[in-house]
Amino acid sequence: MAAETLSALRSLMASHSPPLHALVVPSEDYHQSEYVSARDKRRAFVSGFTGSAGLALITKDEALLWTDGRYFLQAEQQLSAQWKLMRLAEDPPVDIWMADNLPKDAAIGVDPWCISIDTAQRWERSFAKKQQKLVQTTKNLVDEVWATRPPEEINAVVVQPLKFAGRSVTDKLKDLRKKLAQEHARGIIFTALDEVAWLYNIRGKDVAYCPVVHAFAIVTSNHAFIYVDKRKVSNEVKTHLEENGIEIKEYTEVSLDTALLATDELDHVSTAKGSLAEVTKESENLPSETNKIGNGRHQTGEKSSNLIWADPGSCCYALYSKLNPDTVHLQQSPLALPKALKNTVELDGLRKAHIRDGAAVVQYLVWLDKKMQDFYGASGYFLEENTVKKEKHLQSLKLTEVTVSDKLEEFRASKEHFRGLSFPTISSVGPNAAIIHYSPEAETCAELDPDKIYLFDSGAQYLDGTTDITRTVHFGRPSDHEKACYTAVLKGHIALGNAIFPNGTNGHALDILARIPLWKYGLDYRHGTGHGIGSYLNVHEGPHLISFRTRNVPLQSSMTVTDEPGYYEDGAFGIRLENVLVINKADAKYNFGDKGYLSFEHITWAPYQTKLIDLNLLNPEEKKWLNSYHSKCRDILAPYLDEAESAWLKKATEPVIV
Amino acid sequence: MAAETLSALRSLMASHSPPLHALVVPSEDYHQSEYVSARDKRRAFVSGFTGSAGLALITKDEALLWTDGRYFLQAEQQLSAQWKLMRLAEDPPVDIWMADNLPKDAAIGVDPWCISIDTAQRWERSFAKKQQKLVQTTKNLVDEVWATRPPEEINAVVVQPLKFAGRSVTDKLKDLRKKLAQEHARGIIFTALDEVAWLYNIRGKDVAYCPVVHAFAIVTSNHAFIYVDKRKVSNEVKTHLEENGIEIKEYTEVSLDTALLATDELDHVSTAKGSLAEVTKESENLPSETNKIGNGRHQTGEKSSNLIWADPGSCCYALYSKLNPDTVHLQQSPLALPKALKNTVELDGLRKAHIRDGAAVVQYLVWLDKKMQDFYGASGYFLEENTVKKEKHLQSLKLTEVTVSDKLEEFRASKEHFRGLSFPTISSVGPNAAIIHYSPEAETCAELDPDKIYLFDSGAQYLDGTTDITRTVHFGRPSDHEKACYTAVLKGHIALGNAIFPNGTNGHALDILARIPLWKYGLDYRHGTGHGIGSYLNVHEGPHLISFRTRNVPLQSSMTVTDEPGYYEDGAFGIRLENVLVINKADAKYNFGDKGYLSFEHITWAPYQTKLIDLNLLNPEEKKWLNSYHSKCRDILAPYLDEAESAWLKKATEPVIV
Repeated sequence: MAAETLSALRSLMASHSPPLHALVVPSEDYHQSEYVSARDKRRAFVSGFTGSAGLALITKDEALLWTDGRYFLQAEQQLSAQWKLMRLAEDPPVDIWMADNLPKDAAIGVDPWCISIDTAQRWERSFAKKQQKLVQTTKNLVDEVWATRPPEEINAVVVQPLKFAGRSVTDKLKDLRKKLAQEHARGIIFTALDEVAWLYNIRGKDVAYCPVVHAFAIVTSNHAFIYVDKRKVSNEVKTHLEENGIEIKEYTEVSLDTALLATDELDHVSTAKGSLAEVTKESENLPSETNKIGNGRHQTGEKSSNLIWADPGSCCYALYSKLNPDTVHLQQSPLALPKALKNTVELDGLRKAHIRDGAAVVQYLVWLDKKMQDFYGASGYFLEENTVKKEKHLQSLKLTEVTVSDKLEEFRASKEHFRGLSFPTISSVGPNAAIIHYSPEAETCAELDPDKIYLFDSGAQYLDGTTDITRTVHFGRPSDHEKACYTAVLKGHIALGNAIFPNGTNGHALDILARIPLWKYGLDYRHGTGHGIGSYLNVHEGPHLISFRTRNVPLQSSMTVTDEPGYYEDGAFGIRLENVLVINKADAKYNFGDKGYLSFEHITWAPYQTKLIDLNLLNPEEKKWLNSYHSKCRDILAPYLDEAESAWLKKATEPVIV
Repeated sequence: MAAETLSALRSLMASHSPPLHALVVPSEDYHQSEYVSARDKRRAFVSGFTGSAGLALITKDEALLWTDGRYFLQAEQQLSAQWKLMRLAEDPPVDIWMADNLPKDAAIGVDPWCISIDTAQRWERSFAKKQQKLVQTTKNLVDEVWATRPPEEINAVVVQPLKFAGRSVTDKLKDLRKKLAQEHARGIIFTALDEVAWLYNIRGKDVAYCPVVHAFAIVTSNHAFIYVDKRKVSNEVKTHLEENGIEIKEYTEVSLDTALLATDELDHVSTAKGSLAEVTKESENLPSETNKIGNGRHQTGEKSSNLIWADPGSCCYALYSKLNPDTVHLQQSPLALPKALKNTVELDGLRKAHIRDGAAVVQYLVWLDKKMQDFYGASGYFLEENTVKKEKHLQSLKLTEVTVSDKLEEFRASKEHFRGLSFPTISSVGPNAAIIHYSPEAETCAELDPDKIYLFDSGAQYLDGTTDITRTVHFGRPSDHEKACYTAVLKGHIALGNAIFPNGTNGHALDILARIPLWKYGLDYRHGTGHGIGSYLNVHEGPHLISFRTRNVPLQSSMTVTDEPGYYEDGAFGIRLENVLVINKADAKYNFGDKGYLSFEHITWAPYQTKLIDLNLLNPEEKKWLNSYHSKCRDILAPYLDEAESAWLKKATEPVIV
């Protein structure tokens, strides 16, 4: 099957005009999404590798797949012999590889809807040395050979009510238009699905795990458009959009309208009333941030707003190609930061959603603990004894990575406002837990094992917030090594969560706090330490990050960020602990330098497994923190648990001796 | 005086051709040195500000001085009313200020010998917006108005013998020429004084605190030159240089020879034999690092070496102006890293020098402790009681910041291989300790005070190594706040020193470890945390750094670096603790990712004052480290102390209860 696909694609490449020396198949859809719908999983279809991040390259003779450290093991397992795995950060990046390995004047094809401006321009710079060309294919070649490509679904759009969104579309558009005026932009194109959903206070189910709608948006000083399959838009949603001055157009019209925007004709063909012209007027005299940093292109005093704003990281090259490069304002989307800075309603919702979610996790642990003892003779969550192996079970009584994660989903689904999972549950036993983003399949997944570590990383979408939590547990007798590693991960998790830091600090600077306890033993993990999380939106949200990679975005009060260090031993086990944190103003005694200091608030509630902690390795401060967190856990979750569950949690959160 | 200087300079600016709208007076000499000789202290002369870092700008109507956070307080005190203090990181940088505030087409003068290529080019980019010009003055205008400028000194050059240098000039030149060949450079210009001294294994005393010689060097594939006042060169030194194939030329000849180097005529006028041509030949086939990163200018396969290498950070604009910009290879000096990576002989010397230096510090503390009790009725180093004020002393019996630091120098001078101090001793009482780089003057300095904190940051030059240590002490009853701050600084100092980290980690990533305990209280310090230190060379040495500023230089085994967090409360007190560390391969249990892990070795030996530590704030690990360090201190210093001193040190290093 994979071989046939490759040869079919190579035929299309050869007959393409111009003939292609190589075809790039990115993971992303037309919106540069991290998670994509089934019919957009082109890279997974051609390569067989199903991880969330990766890029396939097909040349005449080779087929290569680039992915990052989270997925090395999984890719090795999933790629067939025709494919070669390229390891990000170890092997050369794809553009350098192409420049070095493809012939002079090579034509390299890509669907320009599936690649961002940034990426396309970086590649073009790499290609220039050997006069190679990035060719925009007019059709997506993978779609041509994908006979079984799933059909498009017509999923209803819904309104995200103000009581969960916390801020009206009118207010969001007003803020946005101020920023447009400041940057001398007369229009902006939004292609990121979560940005369209956030700006217009709508949600959908076009992408599994992400409550978004396949849609684009264009906003000008006077008009706002949404480009969406109109069959998805009910009358109620239509009213909501129109009341906010948003014109509804067909999804495919975004192409033409972008061209009209470029020639300043879009406003004139629009039918809606010029709703917010006064905002533009009032903000025309505001200082432009662009001028302030003095990039030289827009001189102070220039009042005309002739630029079209596009986020080079999310806007696709196809739409960029319809604009005049001289009047494009390439800068991070003005929605990135407002979306990351949660309002009080969103924060309140996130806190509540995480409590319900924590209760589901505890119920799951209680259920799993019992089953592991009943089915497998495990000593259980609390006791550290050798397993009494019971006789082999009937197939129907087996606990597998998939069946238990279904049970976890069941507990979550019983909670108020549940709308689905926020990403594919990572439910992994022993060596599978070392595959950082492991995704078990019903047919091939492992059976639970009382003698092995079990790691689950999962989250849900609730109307009032998105969740993401990881816990690692053992139902038998963990080895000293496993305990030492669990404790080192926990120490890093605590150190990061307890940090107080001045405004202006980047996530990159904090990253080391989570690694130092592991580095002490010469251990580390090959992934970042924290990401933002959405408010009933994407589980991974920027623009900030806590990572060994630098990104110049200071952490700010009211952002969310995860705290998830880990340790993975190939072929043996994996450990990760993850809570969601909210950034608040710190209650610090002083305020040196008048910078203002920030601290983290944990909003995730579920116990750490005391049995897996080597208490000799925790210092008193860490033990006190653990006891305090556990005590809050107990109080906060109690109302959501029955008597037996409460008793279990009481035991699981018993204070350790400081 | 300052006012007269300014008006004299403004007259010269007006009569300059072209007339200058502004004159820049940097701190640096012709070699971009941090510490400069008395006759090179032009910026201090014009502005009155004597700190080690700063830049003066004189316009027709204004006089401005830029300096960094270490010097804000000192500059405020020293600058007269004509001068305005510009705070780095708070006010706009000087080039942006000039671009914004000086008129269109303004001519901005600078002595091109006193400004680096990097700085000049950055300024020219900033000036381009308003067609402003950077004008290279043919004379140094400050020298013209500086009637009392100290005359030039004729200080003898000496050979740094192999038993201290650890590596021969021949070997260093061989390594250097390999790098030249790899980068297709046929010559290189060295202007940094410590690089010339290091490469040629010579030392001098042309700059207070730095055992360097005012000299330039040019090295080509076949020849090596030194440009130095020949009156400084004894026959012995002449023999050493000539035996190593180095031609001695007059200091001022570097200008002409740079021009000859540019036109490839320098080798032909040289009189020395082509000593190392075979190195070039053998390394011609090595892969070029420039090619590997593919900067596009030098294609693989191009064998000719036509480039002239200059370090844009240290080479002056005057010499750069004599080269053809198209054939200049602007890259960090190939000596920066070899000089920072100490060889085993240098490491051995550094360790020994630090032991002698530590003994001097302990002797000083013993002496000071006694004097503080005898003269001022202090309870002393060990006791925490209110001071019994004794009657006021005769002037001759007073202890001042300067007299005590003279005593400290006396103790150091009694040690083997002592050659002077490595920087002006910071000896500061109470509020003066909050001036980060305070330099007491005999006439104005403060008297010691048993009720105030005393901070001393000092170091020496020994033939076998350079030292740098800071301790903060109190001879009476410190406040709880002072103790809390001292303890937070100590916690940061310990956390950084105990870090284990993988190869590839930058100093920037580690910086936060020293700050986190202070940030906890909303406290911080406005300076970096660590710098490299020379081997009987400059006390501040790159290319690495531990700082909140990013610099892309990974820490490596056999580098030296200081560990010196602090806390400064304006008008009240200052605290800093500083040890020198050596980076070694870590004795880590595992080696995840096969990166190799690194750790620090303290080589500074002097006690921390237990009285100033709030032991409740230290965790057991920190207490254990303190006891272990103190115990080593005692053992290592014992052979250098008399009985009374040993008894004092025994008491000072008494273990705390864990």
